[in-house]
Amino acid sequence: MSEMQSICAVEGVYAAGIKEGKYGLALIRAEGTAAAAFTKNIARAAPVILMQDRIKRGKLAATITNSGCANALTGQRGINDAEEMAAVTAEELSLDPLEVGVASTGVISRYLNLPLIRDQCHQIAPHLAHSPSAEISAAKAIMTTDLVEKHALVTREGFTIGGICKGSGMIAPNMGTMLGYVYTDAEISAPDLQSALKTAVRRSFNRVVVDGDTSTNDVVFCTATGAAGKVPLNEFTSALEECCISLGRQIARDGEGATKLIEVIVRGARSEDEADLVARTVVGSPLVKTAIYGEDPNWGRIVAAAGRSGAEFDPEKVSCWIAGSERRAAVCERGVLSEDLSIAKAALGGREVQIELDLSAGNGKAVAWGCDLTEKYVEINGKYTT
Amino acid sequence: MSEMQSICAVEGVYAAGIKEGKYGLALIRAEGTAAAAFTKNIARAAPVILMQDRIKRGKLAATITNSGCANALTGQRGINDAEEMAAVTAEELSLDPLEVGVASTGVISRYLNLPLIRDQCHQIAPHLAHSPSAEISAAKAIMTTDLVEKHALVTREGFTIGGICKGSGMIAPNMGTMLGYVYTDAEISAPDLQSALKTAVRRSFNRVVVDGDTSTNDVVFCTATGAAGKVPLNEFTSALEECCISLGRQIARDGEGATKLIEVIVRGARSEDEADLVARTVVGSPLVKTAIYGEDPNWGRIVAAAGRSGAEFDPEKVSCWIAGSERRAAVCERGVLSEDLSIAKAALGGREVQIELDLSAGNGKAVAWGCDLTEKYVEINGKYTT
Repeated sequence: MSEMQSICAVEGVYAAGIKEGKYGLALIRAEGTAAAAFTKNIARAAPVILMQDRIKRGKLAATITNSGCANALTGQRGINDAEEMAAVTAEELSLDPLEVGVASTGVISRYLNLPLIRDQCHQIAPHLAHSPSAEISAAKAIMTTDLVEKHALVTREGFTIGGICKGSGMIAPNMGTMLGYVYTDAEISAPDLQSALKTAVRRSFNRVVVDGDTSTNDVVFCTATGAAGKVPLNEFTSALEECCISLGRQIARDGEGATKLIEVIVRGARSEDEADLVARTVVGSPLVKTAIYGEDPNWGRIVAAAGRSGAEFDPEKVSCWIAGSERRAAVCERGVLSEDLSIAKAALGGREVQIELDLSAGNGKAVAWGCDLTEKYVEINGKYTT
Repeated sequence: MSEMQSICAVEGVYAAGIKEGKYGLALIRAEGTAAAAFTKNIARAAPVILMQDRIKRGKLAATITNSGCANALTGQRGINDAEEMAAVTAEELSLDPLEVGVASTGVISRYLNLPLIRDQCHQIAPHLAHSPSAEISAAKAIMTTDLVEKHALVTREGFTIGGICKGSGMIAPNMGTMLGYVYTDAEISAPDLQSALKTAVRRSFNRVVVDGDTSTNDVVFCTATGAAGKVPLNEFTSALEECCISLGRQIARDGEGATKLIEVIVRGARSEDEADLVARTVVGSPLVKTAIYGEDPNWGRIVAAAGRSGAEFDPEKVSCWIAGSERRAAVCERGVLSEDLSIAKAALGGREVQIELDLSAGNGKAVAWGCDLTEKYVEINGKYTT
C-alpha cells in the first residue's frame, strides 16, 4: 500500500482535486497560522492582489486553486472573481471566506469560468480526504504543462513538513506559473512562519525560476496546524528550506523540454547575495544551458555569464568543476583551463549536472537550479497558440 | 561598378583583410581623434584591458583585429600578446604602437597564435586600400558565426560616417562578440567623440545585445579624421547614432538561428532608462522570442516580461500593437485585450516584426532590437564543441 508522500503526511490536512481537460481544481483544507510568498512581477494576477492583502491576517483554513486560466490582467472583474472563488469554498466547507487562500494558473488575459469552478468545487468538496490518493489528486489538479506531479516530505524529530507544487521550471512560462502549498504540524506564530518562508523561498524557488523571472501568478502558501507543538524556529526554517529545495529541484527537472537538471553551486563570493547573483545568472544563461545540452564543458560560457552577473571577483582567480552522478572534474583552476576536459565532458553525460564555482573573493555561498535548453523548449513555446 | 558602402566611403580610410579557415585578420588604417566603448563584463579579454588604457590618449592611427581566438582569460601572457599585435602592426605601417587599436574575437581561454597573426599582418599590410573590395575584405575577416558581413553608411551635409561590425546578435555567444569600427571625416575632439559614442552606443548596440548581456571582448572603436572640418556636435551625435543603429539592427537580424528581426518600441515610460529596461527585457524574453517565432500574438508573455523589468507602470493601462511590413494591429488597449487577434497574427508573418508598447506612465521612450528564438539556435549552440 502506498504511503503519504507530501501534504497528507501532516495531521489535519485534507485534499481533493479534479481535472477536466485543461481545467483543474484543487481544494486543500487545514487550519492554522499561515504565511505566503508572492511574485515580484508588477503585473500581478487578481488572486495575487487579493491574497497579498488577506494573508496579513496570518491565518488560513483552506486553499482553492484552479488551473487553465490565470485570472491575470483581468482588472476589477478578476478581483471580484477571485473573491467569489474564496466565497464558494467557504460556503461548501462552512469557513470564513477571508481564511481561504486563492490561486490560479493558466492562460493570461482571460476571465475565469466561474460556473465551472463552482461546479467542480461542489463536486470535490465531499471527497476531501487525508490519504495518499487525495494528495495525488490535488497535485495533479494544479498541473498545466508539468509532465509530473511534485511532492516533498521532510520529517524531523517532533514535526513534519509536506508540500506539493506545480511549475515546469523554465523562464516564467505563460502556462507555467509556480504554485506551492506547504503544510506542517509544527506550532509557529504567523510572523515567525512568514520570516521562515521568506528565507526558505529565497534559497529555493527564487533560485529555480531563472534570472529573477517571475510570472504574474506565482505564490507559495505555508500553513502550520500547530498539532505537534512548538519547535525551535531555526530548526523549522532549515527543514522548510529543505522541503522547498526538494520542490524547486523537481520544478527545474521538469523544465519544458529539459533533458538534464543543472545545479550551480557558487562559493567564495563576497556575500550570499553576490553568490546568488552568479548562480542564477549562470544557470539562466542560454549559452550555458545549450552547452550542457550538447554535453560541452564550455568554461568560457560559464565565466562570461558569471562576469556579467554584477558580482565582483577576479576572473583570473576563479576555479570551476563539473560533476555528474559519478564523476567530478576540474575545468579551470584559479583561471587556468584544464588541459584534459574528457572527464568533465563525460560528467555531463547524465541526467543531473553540477557546476561548482569558487570565486576566491570571500565566503558567500549559494546554489541555484535550472535545466538545459533544447529544441523541444522552442517547439513547446513556439507552437503554443492563443 | 560597386560603390563604397561603409568605412572606405570616408576619405583617408584604408582597409585589408584575410580569412584562412576560422582564423581571420583585418587591418584598418586611418589617423584621427579616437574614442571607444567596451564591454561591461568584468571578465574582460586582454585586448579590452589593454585598449581601455591606451584609448585614453584619444588618438588612433590603425586597428588590428583577429578572429578565431578571443585572447580572453589568458592572464598576463594574453596582455603581452595583445601588445605584440599592436607592435607588429606599428612596425608594418611605421606607426606608434600606442596608436594601434587591438581587438579579438573567437574561442575564450586559448592563447593567440602569434606567428600566424604576424604572418597574416605582413601579408595584408601591402594591400591596404581605399576601395569597395577593401572594406568588404576587412568586414569578412572579422566574422565568426556571422552569416553576412555588416556595413553602414550615413551621409550628412558636410560629413560622412561609415562603419563595419561583426556579431551574430544572440545573447553573448561564445564566438559572437560584438566588434564595431566606425570612421568619420568630421573634425571632433576626442572628449566630444567619446561623449557622442557613449550616447550612440547606449541607444544602439547596448539595445541589441540582449538583457545587458555582454561578452568578454565587445568593443566599438570610433575614429574621426577631421578632413571635412568641424560639425555641430549634436548633429554628429545623431548621425553616429543612426550609423550604430543600422549596424545593431544588422546584428539582430543575423542572430544565430534567427528567422525574424524584432524591434520593440516602448513609449510612455517614466524615463528613458525605464523604457530601455522594458524594451530590452521584452526583446530578450525567451517566451516572447519563441511566441514570435511561432507567429503567436501572445500579449500575456509581453506584459509579463515588461512587468518583471524593474520599470514602474500600471499593467491595466498598457496598450500594445504588433506590426509587420504592411499591417499593424492593436493587441491590447489600456489593459483590454483585443477580441480579434487575426490581423496581429498576420503581422507576425514577415521577416520583420515591431512590438509597440505604450505604458501610459510618462514620456520615456526607447527602442531595442533582437530576433526570434528557434530550434536552430539550440542546434548551433548545443552542438558546438570545445
